[in-house]
Amino acid sequence: MNTTEIRIAVVGTGRMGLTHAENLARRVRGARLVAVTTSNAERVVEAHRALGDVTIYPNLDALLAAGGLDAVCISSSTSAHADNVVQCAAAGLHIFCEKPLALTLADCDRAIVAAEHAGVQLMIGHVRRFDAGHIEAKRFIEEGAIGNPLIFRAISGDVDPPPPSFADPAVSGGLILDAMYHDLYLSSWLLADEPVRAYAEGGALVDPAIGAVGDVDNAVVTLRFAGGALGTLYVSRTCRYGHDLRVEVIGDEGAVQIGRLRQTPVRLLDRRGVHHDMPRTTPDRLGEAFVVEVQAFVDCLMHATPPPVTGQDSRATIATGLAATRSLHEGKPIPISNAQHPDKT
Amino acid sequence: MNTTEIRIAVVGTGRMGLTHAENLARRVRGARLVAVTTSNAERVVEAHRALGDVTIYPNLDALLAAGGLDAVCISSSTSAHADNVVQCAAAGLHIFCEKPLALTLADCDRAIVAAEHAGVQLMIGHVRRFDAGHIEAKRFIEEGAIGNPLIFRAISGDVDPPPPSFADPAVSGGLILDAMYHDLYLSSWLLADEPVRAYAEGGALVDPAIGAVGDVDNAVVTLRFAGGALGTLYVSRTCRYGHDLRVEVIGDEGAVQIGRLRQTPVRLLDRRGVHHDMPRTTPDRLGEAFVVEVQAFVDCLMHATPPPVTGQDSRATIATGLAATRSLHEGKPIPISNAQHPDKT
Amino acid sequence: MNTTEIRIAVVGTGRMGLTHAENLARRVRGARLVAVTTSNAERVVEAHRALGDVTIYPNLDALLAAGGLDAVCISSSTSAHADNVVQCAAAGLHIFCEKPLALTLADCDRAIVAAEHAGVQLMIGHVRRFDAGHIEAKRFIEEGAIGNPLIFRAISGDVDPPPPSFADPAVSGGLILDAMYHDLYLSSWLLADEPVRAYAEGGALVDPAIGAVGDVDNAVVTLRFAGGALGTLYVSRTCRYGHDLRVEVIGDEGAVQIGRLRQTPVRLLDRRGVHHDMPRTTPDRLGEAFVVEVQAFVDCLMHATPPPVTGQDSRATIATGLAATRSLHEGKPIPISNAQHPDKT
Amino acid sequence: MNTTEIRIAVVGTGRMGLTHAENLARRVRGARLVAVTTSNAERVVEAHRALGDVTIYPNLDALLAAGGLDAVCISSSTSAHADNVVQCAAAGLHIFCEKPLALTLADCDRAIVAAEHAGVQLMIGHVRRFDAGHIEAKRFIEEGAIGNPLIFRAISGDVDPPPPSFADPAVSGGLILDAMYHDLYLSSWLLADEPVRAYAEGGALVDPAIGAVGDVDNAVVTLRFAGGALGTLYVSRTCRYGHDLRVEVIGDEGAVQIGRLRQTPVRLLDRRGVHHDMPRTTPDRLGEAFVVEVQAFVDCLMHATPPPVTGQDSRATIATGLAATRSLHEGKPIPISNAQHPDKT
Repeated sequence: MNTTEIRIAVVGTGRMGLTHAENLARRVRGARLVAVTTSNAERVVEAHRALGDVTIYPNLDALLAAGGLDAVCISSSTSAHADNVVQCAAAGLHIFCEKPLALTLADCDRAIVAAEHAGVQLMIGHVRRFDAGHIEAKRFIEEGAIGNPLIFRAISGDVDPPPPSFADPAVSGGLILDAMYHDLYLSSWLLADEPVRAYAEGGALVDPAIGAVGDVDNAVVTLRFAGGALGTLYVSRTCRYGHDLRVEVIGDEGAVQIGRLRQTPVRLLDRRGVHHDMPRTTPDRLGEAFVVEVQAFVDCLMHATPPPVTGQDSRATIATGLAATRSLHEGKPIPISNAQHPDKT
Repeated sequence: MNTTEIRIAVVGTGRMGLTHAENLARRVRGARLVAVTTSNAERVVEAHRALGDVTIYPNLDALLAAGGLDAVCISSSTSAHADNVVQCAAAGLHIFCEKPLALTLADCDRAIVAAEHAGVQLMIGHVRRFDAGHIEAKRFIEEGAIGNPLIFRAISGDVDPPPPSFADPAVSGGLILDAMYHDLYLSSWLLADEPVRAYAEGGALVDPAIGAVGDVDNAVVTLRFAGGALGTLYVSRTCRYGHDLRVEVIGDEGAVQIGRLRQTPVRLLDRRGVHHDMPRTTPDRLGEAFVVEVQAFVDCLMHATPPPVTGQDSRATIATGLAATRSLHEGKPIPISNAQHPDKT
Repeated sequence: MNTTEIRIAVVGTGRMGLTHAENLARRVRGARLVAVTTSNAERVVEAHRALGDVTIYPNLDALLAAGGLDAVCISSSTSAHADNVVQCAAAGLHIFCEKPLALTLADCDRAIVAAEHAGVQLMIGHVRRFDAGHIEAKRFIEEGAIGNPLIFRAISGDVDPPPPSFADPAVSGGLILDAMYHDLYLSSWLLADEPVRAYAEGGALVDPAIGAVGDVDNAVVTLRFAGGALGTLYVSRTCRYGHDLRVEVIGDEGAVQIGRLRQTPVRLLDRRGVHHDMPRTTPDRLGEAFVVEVQAFVDCLMHATPPPVTGQDSRATIATGLAATRSLHEGKPIPISNAQHPDKT
Repeated sequence: MNTTEIRIAVVGTGRMGLTHAENLARRVRGARLVAVTTSNAERVVEAHRALGDVTIYPNLDALLAAGGLDAVCISSSTSAHADNVVQCAAAGLHIFCEKPLALTLADCDRAIVAAEHAGVQLMIGHVRRFDAGHIEAKRFIEEGAIGNPLIFRAISGDVDPPPPSFADPAVSGGLILDAMYHDLYLSSWLLADEPVRAYAEGGALVDPAIGAVGDVDNAVVTLRFAGGALGTLYVSRTCRYGHDLRVEVIGDEGAVQIGRLRQTPVRLLDRRGVHHDMPRTTPDRLGEAFVVEVQAFVDCLMHATPPPVTGQDSRATIATGLAATRSLHEGKPIPISNAQHPDKT
């Protein structure tokens, strides 16, 4: 792209959309935030408060009709992702889309094909890949510091459950696809291998409202990889003590551990012992990585290089998540078939 | 037992036997180490070096024939445990037996029945229950500090694999029964619940010699408990960076984490960063707990109270381990049936 | 100030000046970076690279002549601070000035009086007061969590010494005034007390070039406070393992510890032990606090509230630093007389 | 000493005396605890409870009259140390004496000369030298891992003050000699240098009863060493959050840090953050080192090798402590003259 500035709009102004919009407005070099979309009157007020005089369109149609864009950042609800990607690709816009790309492999394929046919870039928001800890761990592994990586061990915990309307698997894809998504991707990325079988156990152990919409609030997943490596993952919506994101990769000569159990660099010591805080929210733990991630997208457009996380990466992650989710319901291990869409054959 | 001193002998002088013998000789109040057994000439020398002028018998028969004992500490090879227990019970001796009690449930029942019929105490060596960290975690859980415990998450790593002759499942019971045994027990103890289903994946990912004798060197196990709680466990014989024993129990209001990643209280800081050591051996991490454990056995005998870890506790742990091991070989989740021996009905 | 945007220029484009300029350009709400000054051709290039199309003036005179400003951020060399403050105050501009305000109490008084007479705000750059760790520690102390604070214990270490030309006490004020400045201020702020006596020992223990210009590269300082509390401080220019900023305040019922020994949230574990990195630069440790600090200045101007760190705060810190520096040279404890300038009486 | 067993008695059955007696009775190879002394009826009961059927003499005269000893462990009150050493040396017994050897240099010299003239070994109880952390740090320094050691930084905190009768400087030597003693010694040992000047500030900041007997409860000390290195030390009797023993040695290429802020390997995490315990007593932190220390003494006697900590080591530490104590009272730095007794010239 032969330009010094990428004109970009954010589709959707939920929590993630506003974060991306603020970063694009202030922190990402080479980007100009042109507009955001929301049909919600409260969100309009909130967006103006956070972003100043940015133009706000009621929906994607209006945004595209106005023109003047190089790219979009899609932060709508997951169920709208595929249609949004198809529509933006048809408009010739480069696309950054929040994870997951879709809730079905068919929708993934539809979105991927649309971007390919339109010749636009499609990058998916795998934010933890842009966190300094994960980057350093990947570097250690690639340099051979832990030998051959064998085991991926992870925990992803949110402090409190979302509203049942959000947890509803029809909206979120269910606990595993929604909240274990990053770990499923990171396992493949860090082990440099593909999962071939998934087994899951879980339950609505804490929040009956989540059970009522057909989901679980805690689950554990076992993965077997093509090269023999193993994954053991735990995900929770009820990790009251903090937003606990930890990954370990154990190799045949050592291990890397990513994560931390302290947020603010201060400890209180009294007669009862030593006390400190924990990260409690995603921005606490990953705030800077969101800037690095969107910067990477803008840099790709500036330098016409392929994005670091593609639609196929998200599709493969979703295939794993769907298999694990099926295992959760069927009570047996499920082979993971990550057959790609016909165009790729 | 109406006495001020328990006369005790140690059966077997492998690494664990010598540890128990030294602790009984020097560190356990109320115990008098009377003798040890070994038929191995090198071990005789080693035992004298460690224990001084202790009497050494070539085998259990000779030890029992000599008499003068109140109790025995059985540290022979696992496959001999059940026979040893039966023989010592018949001699009217109280018994401390290293874990696991046996490699089959039938042998467990045989040993348990023998002790019951003889009216002698039978305690099994579940050393981690006597570690200050695990004790404190149990206390936190019982006091309600984490709410209702839901998830048991554990890692048990040995630095290097044992010789294949030891790893042989016919001798060791296989990786899960041998090296995940403590975590299987701790999961029930800390969650105060019983596992009802196990799923395992594993492989001889590092050491082909272990594969050659029919075992794996790394495995992950998922447990489901009767009350809905979940377990996610990882065990390794090739955890090169240290003897890594960590347990987390996550409840609906908090969590406890047991374990540590530093042994000596010193850090080296240089231009490359911060460096410190890890526990590398079981005595590094649990040395004091072995004293506390055998002290608990001796105290039970002194005060005629029931032992804190019974034959049934070991039997239940073995039942779980056998189910997980079967899952490992059959590729599907296995229900855990922990039906007790007829006398208990 | 009845405005929605503060027009601000940065005087000086060294490392600190560029940091402030970038933050003002992108991260501080309510600020508009209008210009920077530098007479150095290389810095002009660097400033354009970092800041885009910002206007660059060769010096403060040219900047003031151009007009159109509400405020300035003075990041020139310390020896120019007082003159810069006087000139900007005369121009009616609000002033943020990097620490220390000056190298003599007389210059401090000149600058403070100029700002007072001009009726402009004068805030000094005490960045660590805006770090989340220090803020939390202050809150703990004020809430009584440690009882009565008694002891201030600190270390401030830079990885490598600056060039001798910079270390020259005529330029930097010497090690204590330059590099222990923040700890001297924090001791008063956190103990809520004033130092009355200082004793220092130090030496050019590592870098003879620093000795050659008349300074030391490592020093320890003892402070006694009016209320009886004690300070024990260490400062180093040769802390090779990292940028080590740690503060402890110990009270009669507990303590707070600020600081950390890990930067990236990743650990490498191998056969030699556990390894992780350290903060190595000021932005590593305090990057976000620089944004919060300048935001606080802009917010003061927007809401016409007094700045959280005043010229008098810097003057008192400098008085302590001068006493400690004198002790270093005279080999005896020096009383701290922090008599204020005549206007304050 | 041509024997396989050292017959040893413990003089004094206070807390330290009982600890040594228990270790000698059970944990030290090659030692046989023969007797203890106490004139206190309660202590007689306590000693029997802890040690079983050990012989108890009312005083040192009675112990020496009974004979049958190779060595003594002197754990009487500090003011009695020198006389006890002289008397035991005259009886031809090897001597382990708790630190400090005495409260005056003259008494030190008297004790040292007595042992030399009698040709008996005299070892002083510098327990931290036998702690794994300090040993490892010394090894790192000797291997050059931190370059040239420059700075010794330490904290020694006891949770609560002793009774004023014990704190009385006539009994204890005062806070610095009593509670900073180990750090004063460690500074010389770890830096491999001798202090030449001391400056101290302190106060009875918390406990007026300590002030009433003429002592302080918190103090900071600065040391300058012959080679230019510096020490900055803090000691407290009111460190409510724990028994905090930390030492850092910073060199021109790195640093070592000794100490830890966690005792039990367990953490509690709840909605308020992360919580863990601290060491609270000397046995919590140094329990094992007391065994290693007395083992070292017994090994010296068995192998006729010189003790690792001599009377001269204690004398030099006391000289430093006396200088720092004088500085505390006189308000100026005090040169440390560690002239040795005439026999050494």
